[in-house]
Amino acid sequence: MEFYNFSEQVLRDFTQSVFEKMGCSEIHAILATDVLIKADLRGIDSHGVARLTGYVRLWEKGRINPKPNIKIVHETATTATVDGDAGLGLVVAPFAMDLAIKKAKEFGSGWVAVKNSNHFGIAGYHALKAVENDMIGYALTNASPLVAPTFSSERMLGTNPICYAFPAGKFPAVVVDMATSTAANGKLEIAQRQGKNVPEGWIQDKDGNAALHPEDLKNGGSLLPLGSDREHGSHKGFGLSATVDILSAVLSGASYGPWAPPFVAFMDPLPNQPGEGLGHFLGAMRVDGFRPIEDFKANMDNWIQRFKDAKPIDENQKVIIPGEPELQAEQDRKINGIPLIDAVVNDLNEIAEKLNIAKLAI
Amino acid sequence: MEFYNFSEQVLRDFTQSVFEKMGCSEIHAILATDVLIKADLRGIDSHGVARLTGYVRLWEKGRINPKPNIKIVHETATTATVDGDAGLGLVVAPFAMDLAIKKAKEFGSGWVAVKNSNHFGIAGYHALKAVENDMIGYALTNASPLVAPTFSSERMLGTNPICYAFPAGKFPAVVVDMATSTAANGKLEIAQRQGKNVPEGWIQDKDGNAALHPEDLKNGGSLLPLGSDREHGSHKGFGLSATVDILSAVLSGASYGPWAPPFVAFMDPLPNQPGEGLGHFLGAMRVDGFRPIEDFKANMDNWIQRFKDAKPIDENQKVIIPGEPELQAEQDRKINGIPLIDAVVNDLNEIAEKLNIAKLAI
Repeated sequence: MEFYNFSEQVLRDFTQSVFEKMGCSEIHAILATDVLIKADLRGIDSHGVARLTGYVRLWEKGRINPKPNIKIVHETATTATVDGDAGLGLVVAPFAMDLAIKKAKEFGSGWVAVKNSNHFGIAGYHALKAVENDMIGYALTNASPLVAPTFSSERMLGTNPICYAFPAGKFPAVVVDMATSTAANGKLEIAQRQGKNVPEGWIQDKDGNAALHPEDLKNGGSLLPLGSDREHGSHKGFGLSATVDILSAVLSGASYGPWAPPFVAFMDPLPNQPGEGLGHFLGAMRVDGFRPIEDFKANMDNWIQRFKDAKPIDENQKVIIPGEPELQAEQDRKINGIPLIDAVVNDLNEIAEKLNIAKLAI
Repeated sequence: MEFYNFSEQVLRDFTQSVFEKMGCSEIHAILATDVLIKADLRGIDSHGVARLTGYVRLWEKGRINPKPNIKIVHETATTATVDGDAGLGLVVAPFAMDLAIKKAKEFGSGWVAVKNSNHFGIAGYHALKAVENDMIGYALTNASPLVAPTFSSERMLGTNPICYAFPAGKFPAVVVDMATSTAANGKLEIAQRQGKNVPEGWIQDKDGNAALHPEDLKNGGSLLPLGSDREHGSHKGFGLSATVDILSAVLSGASYGPWAPPFVAFMDPLPNQPGEGLGHFLGAMRVDGFRPIEDFKANMDNWIQRFKDAKPIDENQKVIIPGEPELQAEQDRKINGIPLIDAVVNDLNEIAEKLNIAKLAI
């Protein structure tokens, strides 16, 4: 496994070209690119340009509409449902978050459920848009079924992430952005590429037995909900994942549970879909709907400082504030570039050839 | 350890008498009683009348105001902050949830942060009020510091529960109501009473070493966040607990993190409190702000049925829908009574003697 280093701008230009070749408008191509590159910058490599080939394959299958007519299909002062028209989640979710922010500006809070969408990238991208407006941001999405509920061996839920983002003052925003499974699928992919076992409690085999080999996941096994087993609270991870599924998909009219359309193009969605596409749920609340923003920020700074000062078990490993490692990665990679593994570069260059755009130079 | 069985009504009358002796109005005494008894009915024994002595001791210490002037101190169309005036969380939280529901009726959603409150009982009680109005309910609270963040040996957070409640059609509501620690404190109390070890991953000792003895928790140890250790996602449990702390306390102006006032009266709150009392966060969203209620309920029923039908690992243990065991307990205990262990009955009867009310007959 070898790494190649690319500047942010090189990857932006490349990615935008791909989306434009898919038929996206320039505005949509720039926006979708921004969401993907943000993941690479923040060190969440599994959700960045490494996914680009996946989007292209879904588009080739006719499952992504590059020119969606995204529209509001139901609405109150502070709530709405958006139909993504099978567009890229990378452009549908920002539309929905902008709507949530607009409602929050006027009425204090805004909540938008989305149906008929696709993978929306990193949840943190969307939640952070609220933070820029001195609001608390909230972003959820359901995803390809890979996780089994407690007591089951069946893939019924996605890794269904939850993200909350909170503005702070002198410190950066606190961003909780987490899969509701014990391990994110990206970690399994890495272990598989390296031929390594994973820790007990991450996956089970197709019969529900504890498993250590990433191959067991591929062969009909499943990821385990946060908590790993009943004794360690996996019913809580299941409950969180169920919450994400219900808010994102049952509430919006998207497909939920095992019917959530798979991200991989070689698997067709199950027949008899109960809804349309993937679902998201985006929210924004004005901080000054509760207390003056400066009071909140001062107390957030105090909160962050106190947690940084919490007594460490090992003097060399202090408490990590949620969102801090991602921001450090972003600052570093903006300057030093984004490393991509050779397999990803090869995939991207295959696409470049197919779409007749300039390859990434290595 | 012996159990005594009491009818719901006997415990209601007793509990109401205690709250009235504390100086609560009849209306508040009835409401606080309703919250506590609901916990006993639903089988969450740690949060029912077993807590009554704790409230009385806090009142004796002057930390609970039995005649609070609960008021809205900040407000927009869909957001508000409520000052609980050091009242029982058992009456402050219902005030806040009623306000959230009122706002949701008018504007689609309502969100209320609460400061200067006390323990609010089970989160599910409050979230279920929204369900009665065909809304999605949300209830959070911070709590006495007992949980250490990942990489720390210091008690910085409470078991900070998250509750979402969703209405369904022919099936009962889905209620996700969970501590964000691996194990609830109540489970530790039971293990301690029985002199038993707890599973690895529930607690650590005062230096952050893995521990199995409930005594280690008492002697300066801490509960672990959901996920137990970094490898199994404890940073996610920490992130969830942090989210609850921020929404409940930093947003409202309550005391957060290690400053959250302890529930036990023999421990004084830390000096230099950054806010006032405990904090809660209550929310309500109209389902029909997103899609027609009948569509939602039909799809919830389909969701529930599909998860009940998920392939079980063991034929005798099907997937448990969140909220189902609590409802079964409620139906059973309404008919067959509520079992209390002798230690709880003795505590209650000591209070009865002190307050000069009729003891529970055993």
